[in-house]
Amino acid sequence: MSKFAVGVDFGTLSARALVAETGTGRELASAVMNYPHAVMDERLPDGAPLPPDWALQHPGDYLLCLKTVVPEALRKAGVSAEDVVGIGVDFTASTVMPVTDDLTPLCLLPEFTSRPHAYVKLWKHHGGQDEANRMTETARICGETFLARYGNKVSSEWMIPKIWETLNKDPEIYDRAARFIDAGDWLVSLLVGREVRSASIAGFKAFWQKDTGYPSEEYFAALDPRLKTLVRDKLGPTPVPVNSRAGELTETGASMTGLLPGTAVAVAQIDAHVAIPPTGIAGSGRMLMIMGTSTCHLMLSDESHIVPGMCGAVEDSVVPGLLCYEAGQSCVGDSFNWFAERCVPEEYMKEARSRNLDAHRLLTEKAALLRPGESGLIALDWWNGNRSVLVDADLTGMIIGLTLTTKPEEIYRALIESTAYGTRMIAETFERHGVVADSLYACGGIAQKNAFLMQIYADVLGREIRIARSAQTPALGAAMLGAVAAGSAAGGYDCIEDAAREMGGTLETIYRPNPAAHAVYDRLYREYAALHDFFGRGGNDVMKRLKQIRSEAR
Amino acid sequence: MSKFAVGVDFGTLSARALVAETGTGRELASAVMNYPHAVMDERLPDGAPLPPDWALQHPGDYLLCLKTVVPEALRKAGVSAEDVVGIGVDFTASTVMPVTDDLTPLCLLPEFTSRPHAYVKLWKHHGGQDEANRMTETARICGETFLARYGNKVSSEWMIPKIWETLNKDPEIYDRAARFIDAGDWLVSLLVGREVRSASIAGFKAFWQKDTGYPSEEYFAALDPRLKTLVRDKLGPTPVPVNSRAGELTETGASMTGLLPGTAVAVAQIDAHVAIPPTGIAGSGRMLMIMGTSTCHLMLSDESHIVPGMCGAVEDSVVPGLLCYEAGQSCVGDSFNWFAERCVPEEYMKEARSRNLDAHRLLTEKAALLRPGESGLIALDWWNGNRSVLVDADLTGMIIGLTLTTKPEEIYRALIESTAYGTRMIAETFERHGVVADSLYACGGIAQKNAFLMQIYADVLGREIRIARSAQTPALGAAMLGAVAAGSAAGGYDCIEDAAREMGGTLETIYRPNPAAHAVYDRLYREYAALHDFFGRGGNDVMKRLKQIRSEAR
Repeated sequence: MSKFAVGVDFGTLSARALVAETGTGRELASAVMNYPHAVMDERLPDGAPLPPDWALQHPGDYLLCLKTVVPEALRKAGVSAEDVVGIGVDFTASTVMPVTDDLTPLCLLPEFTSRPHAYVKLWKHHGGQDEANRMTETARICGETFLARYGNKVSSEWMIPKIWETLNKDPEIYDRAARFIDAGDWLVSLLVGREVRSASIAGFKAFWQKDTGYPSEEYFAALDPRLKTLVRDKLGPTPVPVNSRAGELTETGASMTGLLPGTAVAVAQIDAHVAIPPTGIAGSGRMLMIMGTSTCHLMLSDESHIVPGMCGAVEDSVVPGLLCYEAGQSCVGDSFNWFAERCVPEEYMKEARSRNLDAHRLLTEKAALLRPGESGLIALDWWNGNRSVLVDADLTGMIIGLTLTTKPEEIYRALIESTAYGTRMIAETFERHGVVADSLYACGGIAQKNAFLMQIYADVLGREIRIARSAQTPALGAAMLGAVAAGSAAGGYDCIEDAAREMGGTLETIYRPNPAAHAVYDRLYREYAALHDFFGRGGNDVMKRLKQIRSEAR
Repeated sequence: MSKFAVGVDFGTLSARALVAETGTGRELASAVMNYPHAVMDERLPDGAPLPPDWALQHPGDYLLCLKTVVPEALRKAGVSAEDVVGIGVDFTASTVMPVTDDLTPLCLLPEFTSRPHAYVKLWKHHGGQDEANRMTETARICGETFLARYGNKVSSEWMIPKIWETLNKDPEIYDRAARFIDAGDWLVSLLVGREVRSASIAGFKAFWQKDTGYPSEEYFAALDPRLKTLVRDKLGPTPVPVNSRAGELTETGASMTGLLPGTAVAVAQIDAHVAIPPTGIAGSGRMLMIMGTSTCHLMLSDESHIVPGMCGAVEDSVVPGLLCYEAGQSCVGDSFNWFAERCVPEEYMKEARSRNLDAHRLLTEKAALLRPGESGLIALDWWNGNRSVLVDADLTGMIIGLTLTTKPEEIYRALIESTAYGTRMIAETFERHGVVADSLYACGGIAQKNAFLMQIYADVLGREIRIARSAQTPALGAAMLGAVAAGSAAGGYDCIEDAAREMGGTLETIYRPNPAAHAVYDRLYREYAALHDFFGRGGNDVMKRLKQIRSEAR
C-alpha cells in the first residue's frame, strides 16, 4: 500500500503544495496559490505608504494558502489524509515577524495593524541596512570570529538587523514581541502546538552554530544595550536539526491542513537548502547550483573550514553531522533579462515574433552558433554586485572587447559565460580552502530549460553537471522532510540519505565538458580572474567611485 | 566686380565642386557626383574577385566627376569662367596609383586592366598591412628617428606600404610604373601640365619632411634592396608648400574643368587638412576637430616637438612656416551608429517612429535629460582601436559601471562621453609635450548638427568650442587655396591667412563649458585616464589576448 508525504513550499509570491509518493518520489499532484497581499513594498494594507527598500508580507496569507493548497493537492492526487505519513515546510528566509507568547503575529492585533514593524519582514526587506552595517563594524571592532563563516559581512536580509531595526524605529513593537520568529518556524510551531526552531534557519540567518550557539551577549550588548538579552528573551528554544521531527499535527494543525491529527511534521527548512535531497544529494563533495534570477550554491562537507566569501556554513542544516556551505551570485538570470529587455534591436524582435520565439530563445539560438572565444568579449557578472567570493554590493558590471562588429548575441553569450566564470571562481575558492566539490548538480528553471547555458557551464567548469529530476525541487524536498519526520515504520524514512536515494535523483541528461571548449575557456577564465581580482580586490576601485558620483548626481 | 574661386573636394565616394566668392567666402553653388565605380572592395571592373582588406578606385571616375561638377557648379552659381581666379583640389590620401611618364594610370592601359595593383589604392586599402608592419619593425631595428613624428608606427593606409605591396605582389606593375603618385597630386599635375607634389600629402602620407626629405636610401634598402632608389626613381620632384601655385590651367586642364586656360591652380591638399582655413584658423595654438565616423585632430604650431601618438607633423602643409600636427580617434560616429543599429530596443524604435525621429535623435533626447555622472558608466572609446595617443589598433572597447537599472540612453551617453575623454587625452598629451591648443574648433556633420554632443565636449574639455560656419568646409578650403594661388592682384589673396580671415569663420554659437558639469567630468576623466593607461599601456593586455583568442576561434 503506497504512502505519501506532503511538502509545502512558501516562496516569495506564492505557496505550492505537492503530494509525493514515498519510496519512489513520484509526484502525484500539486496546487499553488498566490499570497493575496503579495509583497507589500509600497503600502500597508491600510494604505499607509512604506519607505523605499521595504518589503513586507501578511502572515494571514500564509495560513490562507496553507489551508487551500494542501487539501487541493490531496484532492487532485486522489490521496486520502490517512495515507499521508508526514508534512514538511520550506520557506523564504529570513522572513521574520514579531509574535505574542501564543505565536500570534503582532500585526493581527487590532492595535498594531497600522504599524509597519508589526508585519512580516520579507527576506528582501532592506530597511535594516544601517543596522547590518553597524553589526559588521561592531563585530570587527570587538574581534568577533563568528562572522568569518558569513563572508565577514552582515546582510540586511538576515534576521538580527531586521529585529534591531524594529527596536530602533518602533521600540514598542520590540517590547511587545514575546518572540521574533522566522515564518517557517512559526508555521511549523503552529502545526505542532509548540515552538520549534530550525537549525538551518537559525544557522544561516541568525549566526547560530551548533557548538557555540548565537553570538555572545557581549556582542549584542556592544550593538545596543537593549539587545543584550535578545537571544534569551525573544529567540525561543535551541534550534534543532533539520530532518528531525518537530512533532505531530495537533487538532488545530490538522484543521489548517486537512491532514489527520498526529501526522508527523518536519522542522522547517530554507527554500534553497531544501532542494538538496531531491537532487539526490546527501553526502560530502557535491555542489548544488539553484539557478534562477540569482544563483545559490550549496555544498555539503564533513570538514569545517573558513572560505572567503561564504554566506554561511551550518551543521545539521541539511544532513545530520554534515556542514552545509552556502555561496551565491546575485545576478544570473537577472542580467540575461536586463539584456533581453533593454538591448535587443527591433529586427531581432521581429524575427523572434515571426518565428514565435521570445527574445531569450532567439538570442540563445544565435549565441549557440558561436564558438567559445569567438565573440572576443569578457564580462564581469556584477550587474547587481558580487555576493561570493567578494561580498561587495558596490561592484558593477563590465564588458570588455567590444568592436564595431560586436553583435547582440555575442554580448548575450558573454553575459552567460560571465556567470559561469563566477561560479567557477566560487568552486575554486571553496576547493582552495578545503571544501571540494567533486561533482556538480543544478536545479531551478534555468537548469532545466536551458541546455545551451548548462553546456557552457560544463565547458567553463570542466566538470560534469547533473540536473535535478524534479521541476519542483523545493516542494519535493519539503515532502521528503515530512517522510523522514514520519520514520520508516510509518512508511517514511529514518534518515534523509535514504529519502534522497529513493525519492530524489537527476535527469538522464548529463552535461559533459567538451575538451576543446574547456581549453579555450581555461584561457578566458584566467582573463576573467585577473579582471575580477583587479576590480574586485582594490586594484582599481573605479566601480565604487562611479557609484558615488552617480548617487551625488541623482 | 566680384571674383570667385572653385574648390573641388574628392571624398571617398563622390566629388563636390563649390563656387565661392573671394573677399567674403559666400558659397554660391555646389555640385556633387558619385564615382561610377565607387569603392571596388569585392571585384575589379572585369569581375575578378579582390582579397579582403582591399579598396580600389578607378581614376577615370575622378576625371569624369571633375568634368561634370565644375561646369555644373558654375552654371548653378551663374558665374562665368572669366570671373574664376583660381581652382584648388583636395583629395583623400594616401590614395595612390602607378602611372606612366606622361601620368597615364597603368590601369587604363589595355594590358593592365585586369591587374589589381594597376588601379588606385584608396586610403582605406589595407592590403599592405604586412609591409607596414615590416616598415615599423625595420625603422626600429635601424634606429630611424623619422617615425617618431608618426606615432612610431607605419599605417597601411600610407603611401609606401601600398607601393611596396605592389612590388611584392606584382613586380611587373612596379617596374612599369614611372611614378607612384597620390590622386590629388596626379589631378593637379594633369591640370597644369607638369608634375607637382604637395608637401602635405608627401609629409603626412610618405614621411617627407622639409628639412630632411624622405627617409634615407639606407632605410629603403633595408626594407628591400629593390626599394633603395624608390624616391629618386618614382616619387617625382621635391614637394612644394600647400598654398603655393602649382601652375596655370593648360588647354587640356581648361577642357577638363570648363575654366579658362591660364587660371591659377593650387597645390593639392589632403581632404582633412584643407578644412583648417575655412574654419578661420591660420595661426598657432588652435585645434580643429573634424568630426564624423572618426575624428581627425589638427593643430598648427610654430614649435617642433615630438608628441606621443601624433600621426604626423609637417611644415608648410597648411600655413607656410608653421607645422601642422595631426592626431585622430578611429571611432567616433561609428560607435554611436554601432549602438543605434545593434542595441536599441524595440519600444524605443516604436517611440521614435511615432514621433518621426531616428534612433539617434531619440537617444540624444533621452540622454540629454541625464546629468553628468548620473549613468554611473565609463567607456573606453576603442571599438575600432586607438589611433592617438596609443597608436594601437588591437585595443577594443569597454564599458564599466553597468547595473540592472542601466538604460540604453545611459550607454549611448557614455559612448559620447568616452569620445570626449579621448579628445581630452589627445589635447592634454599635446599640451604636455609643448603643442598647446588655446582654443578649440570643430567641423563636420556631427559638429554642425549635434549641439548635445558638442556641449558634452565643451564640458569635458573645459574649453570653449567654435564651429565652422561652412557646412562644406573641404570644398570651401579647396576654393580658398585656389584664391591664394591666384594672388591678390587677380582678385584672390597673397597668403592663406588673409583668405582665412575673409572667407573662413565660425558660427555665432559657441559651446561654453558649464563649470558644475566640468567639475564632475574632471572626476570622471581621471577614471577614464586610469583605465586608458591600464588597458592601453600594458597594465593588462587582455584586449589583445581576447583578439588573439577570437581570431583563433574564427
